[in-house]
Amino acid sequence: MRQSKLFGRTLREAPAEAQTPGHRLVLRAAIAKPLAAGLYTWLPLGFRVAKKVERIIRQEQNRIGAQEMEMPVLTPAEPWKQTGRWDALEPITFRTKDHNGREFMVSYTHEEFVHLHAMQETQSYKQMPQIVYHFQSKGRDEARPRAGLLRLREFVMKDAYSFDVDQAGLEKSYAAEHEAYARTFERMGLDAISVESDTGAMGGDIAHEFQVLTEVGEDRIAICSNCDYRANLEKATRYIEGGSARADGVPARSAIATPGTESIEALEASLGQPGDAFLKTLLFRDQSRKVVAVVLPGDRDVNEAKLRKALATGEVKFASDADFVEAGAVPGYIGPIGLKTRVLVDHGVGARPYIAGANKKDVHFRDVVLGRDFEGERVDASDVREGDLCPKCKVGRLTIKRGVEVGNIFAYGTYYSDKMNATFVAEDGTRRPFFGGSYGIGLERAVQTIIETHHDDKGIVWPPQVAPYHAHVIALPMNDEDVRTKAEALVAKLETSGVEVLYDDRDESAGVKFADADLIGIPLRVTVSKRNLKENAVELKLRTAAESEMVPHGSAVDRIAEIVASWPR
Amino acid sequence: MRQSKLFGRTLREAPAEAQTPGHRLVLRAAIAKPLAAGLYTWLPLGFRVAKKVERIIRQEQNRIGAQEMEMPVLTPAEPWKQTGRWDALEPITFRTKDHNGREFMVSYTHEEFVHLHAMQETQSYKQMPQIVYHFQSKGRDEARPRAGLLRLREFVMKDAYSFDVDQAGLEKSYAAEHEAYARTFERMGLDAISVESDTGAMGGDIAHEFQVLTEVGEDRIAICSNCDYRANLEKATRYIEGGSARADGVPARSAIATPGTESIEALEASLGQPGDAFLKTLLFRDQSRKVVAVVLPGDRDVNEAKLRKALATGEVKFASDADFVEAGAVPGYIGPIGLKTRVLVDHGVGARPYIAGANKKDVHFRDVVLGRDFEGERVDASDVREGDLCPKCKVGRLTIKRGVEVGNIFAYGTYYSDKMNATFVAEDGTRRPFFGGSYGIGLERAVQTIIETHHDDKGIVWPPQVAPYHAHVIALPMNDEDVRTKAEALVAKLETSGVEVLYDDRDESAGVKFADADLIGIPLRVTVSKRNLKENAVELKLRTAAESEMVPHGSAVDRIAEIVASWPR
Repeated sequence: MRQSKLFGRTLREAPAEAQTPGHRLVLRAAIAKPLAAGLYTWLPLGFRVAKKVERIIRQEQNRIGAQEMEMPVLTPAEPWKQTGRWDALEPITFRTKDHNGREFMVSYTHEEFVHLHAMQETQSYKQMPQIVYHFQSKGRDEARPRAGLLRLREFVMKDAYSFDVDQAGLEKSYAAEHEAYARTFERMGLDAISVESDTGAMGGDIAHEFQVLTEVGEDRIAICSNCDYRANLEKATRYIEGGSARADGVPARSAIATPGTESIEALEASLGQPGDAFLKTLLFRDQSRKVVAVVLPGDRDVNEAKLRKALATGEVKFASDADFVEAGAVPGYIGPIGLKTRVLVDHGVGARPYIAGANKKDVHFRDVVLGRDFEGERVDASDVREGDLCPKCKVGRLTIKRGVEVGNIFAYGTYYSDKMNATFVAEDGTRRPFFGGSYGIGLERAVQTIIETHHDDKGIVWPPQVAPYHAHVIALPMNDEDVRTKAEALVAKLETSGVEVLYDDRDESAGVKFADADLIGIPLRVTVSKRNLKENAVELKLRTAAESEMVPHGSAVDRIAEIVASWPR
Repeated sequence: MRQSKLFGRTLREAPAEAQTPGHRLVLRAAIAKPLAAGLYTWLPLGFRVAKKVERIIRQEQNRIGAQEMEMPVLTPAEPWKQTGRWDALEPITFRTKDHNGREFMVSYTHEEFVHLHAMQETQSYKQMPQIVYHFQSKGRDEARPRAGLLRLREFVMKDAYSFDVDQAGLEKSYAAEHEAYARTFERMGLDAISVESDTGAMGGDIAHEFQVLTEVGEDRIAICSNCDYRANLEKATRYIEGGSARADGVPARSAIATPGTESIEALEASLGQPGDAFLKTLLFRDQSRKVVAVVLPGDRDVNEAKLRKALATGEVKFASDADFVEAGAVPGYIGPIGLKTRVLVDHGVGARPYIAGANKKDVHFRDVVLGRDFEGERVDASDVREGDLCPKCKVGRLTIKRGVEVGNIFAYGTYYSDKMNATFVAEDGTRRPFFGGSYGIGLERAVQTIIETHHDDKGIVWPPQVAPYHAHVIALPMNDEDVRTKAEALVAKLETSGVEVLYDDRDESAGVKFADADLIGIPLRVTVSKRNLKENAVELKLRTAAESEMVPHGSAVDRIAEIVASWPR
């Protein structure tokens, strides 16, 4: 490919809106460009990377026997309504109507539709286990598209769907996909760790995310210092040591005057007690507008995802003033005692006396004890934090890292087949529901995450297996006929040998050409210059190396082909 | 691939809604299945065909130097509004809004957006000629999706876009794409002819369609019996011989009483004259609700596409009763004389006397002569028909055939760049508008058209280069261990040799397996049976051949690889 004709112009400076190093490089190196917030076009260089990433994903799916197919982007409303996701997904999806008023969704995922197909195509237990997958555009009406390709409103997902006869079969398929994912990310140069995750809009109980730890990530991951426990904070929990029964012999609760002291911070300051001496009580509304109080230690925050899961609701909001009145609570002085509403008590609340609001202006109680002064349903609805005990080994301490979720897998079992009456004929002749799982990788995000984790201050440093080209041949200067002739002959021979070449044939200075080569980040730079040719040499420089290597002009093709052949595919 | 695990079940009978032989075979052979009207899923067999078709298209685009990229499906409204296509395309497109009320279109094509990119990426004449392309889903809100994959509401189009510095450059790019298209269709087994076509919603003047002539086509194509003139009826014209000046000495027009004679057919019957003795006058409204009368020979029909073009409007409708009153016309007795509206006169109206409506109930005029009794703008707004004279050679006669449009190409010049102010810096330093063309191929339609033109009464007969697999290995019976072992060893060796194999390992009868093999239509059937193995032989049968060939078991792999290697790729 002649760079003079490349559809894609490099930029010296990234536009001001670029938010992360990877986002800046995506724009500067002409990998992708936006058409609107969250809607990006792959330019030819980026397209080649995307196709290589796609190829790795495809090979690893095929290796475990998954079959490729393709479902449409526009999906009719009825199956979504059957599973309840038409309403549940409303805030995050795009919808359209045809001119007859029939409703469609720009597909969020395809569980409903692959179940419809499975009912037709997989009617017998003999045909299972079965995994199908496709690469297809997805729409997400993100309120805040972010950082270029990291959070888009349209992206291509590889989504795979497994169908098994029972839970044991599902677990095998799930394990096969888990392994395929680990290989897939490793092959594309991503150091992704598998992390327990919330199932969110997908249903079911078992789910993992593949997270690449990097500061640009939006997710927070708890990682045990001792064992292999790793979980998204939306799911992570902690071990709580059984304390001594300090609640025995606690005096009866008594009121304390706390005028103008409406927050935990203010209480800490005025009473000289640490945050965990208090109870924090928060009032929420769920999606069906039911009000619930959540009681947790004063130094802990509610984790919204965990609370949604505990309430089996799609959305929680803070309660209104009217809700406070109805619950018999006073803002700033709310406490669990005497509340006229459902009460959830976080598992962090221990058998000890707390200071809590009295539901009366300017008054708190001291010596409030769970089980004696108030009751509630025990839940885990609070954030874990650095230093918490690992829930698995009970010995290690948790650290919290930021991560980008590059893949997720869900074992939802009969969640969809029950709702859709999607069954097959089992070995005993009865009809049974499919046991399903789904498995997603976002293509654009994977590519940008590779850049986020493979760059230096000069530009991208592509892992060879996903680089847009293998070699970047630079002719200097282009107006020297000998240079041009030898460079073009080299390019032609390399291409014949299967080496993918970007050929910088532009009439630019060495400075501009080398800067662009570093920016675009092709693994091997090959310089054919007047100076080198005097020595009958060609200069090879790996993007990852500080030093270059001079090779005789006559053996350059063989040496380059040898280097390229040594790379992983 | 083991057929027992194939996601895709063949059907003995096609569902009743299947409209064409290809549609029936798409469903019966599990090539694709619908999720809703006009929304289809590629099942794994069809997906493999689609990928092979895609590969051929891609190779031919790359051969002419086109660069692959990918623009999104969802496109923001503003650029569409800039070119006027937001409104023009409303009847045929899907729209959506985000939760902030911003409008998007499920993309119809991508001219507007590729121009936006070209403005950024191609700033200098030095970078041109430039062709970029992508494979991307398109939405069309077809009122009547038809015949499976022939007319979908969502389909993947390969759309390419050329950018040139001037008209001469555009014509070169257009010619290169024209040739690439001819090669592309030939390689995928389609006998497509290039046909002059209307530019429709694309703008510009020059356009060709690639049409595959088949009775299942919706388009009608005029073909000259003598020269290479071929045109879609939406565009086709005819040569009109200059008649002798029969209008000289025609008596003044006179009224004739024609009570209750409100159609050309009724007039023919009652006056005993042929259809072409009359003038047919029709009243239409264009998109901006302006009324226009079209006058044509009584035996001709208006061609709506040609009329839209003549009026430069996106839509024409029959006029209302109120329009008739305003124009001074009487339904059933309308004629061109004295009409108070714009009048278009079809080029078929000659210099001779006609019988025409008098715009008065129950009255016609005879001896009505154009230029003497009425005037009008001359246009070509009528259908051509079988036997008309070719407009090009003026000697041949036109025949009309049905065709499926599998590709179309448009040279629109500065149609978009003028509206979008999309310019580059020319060699002389001035800013000039891009000269553009666009070039489309619908993937799903191409695949079904291959089936429409490559099948027999038993099933599909795939051209080898687009067949889902090369060989269909059939083991008979599966419960014979020797058969099974030898079949599986053969499959493994074939796959190692690069032969793509569908392996029928199902526990079914010979009748079922052979019927499925004929239905699915893989080019080479390989039968490993107990009977043949007694003779130490394997049976090979080409799908296109009546006879089979017995080869020694030991040389089967070589013989099959040899056959496969002889096929076009």
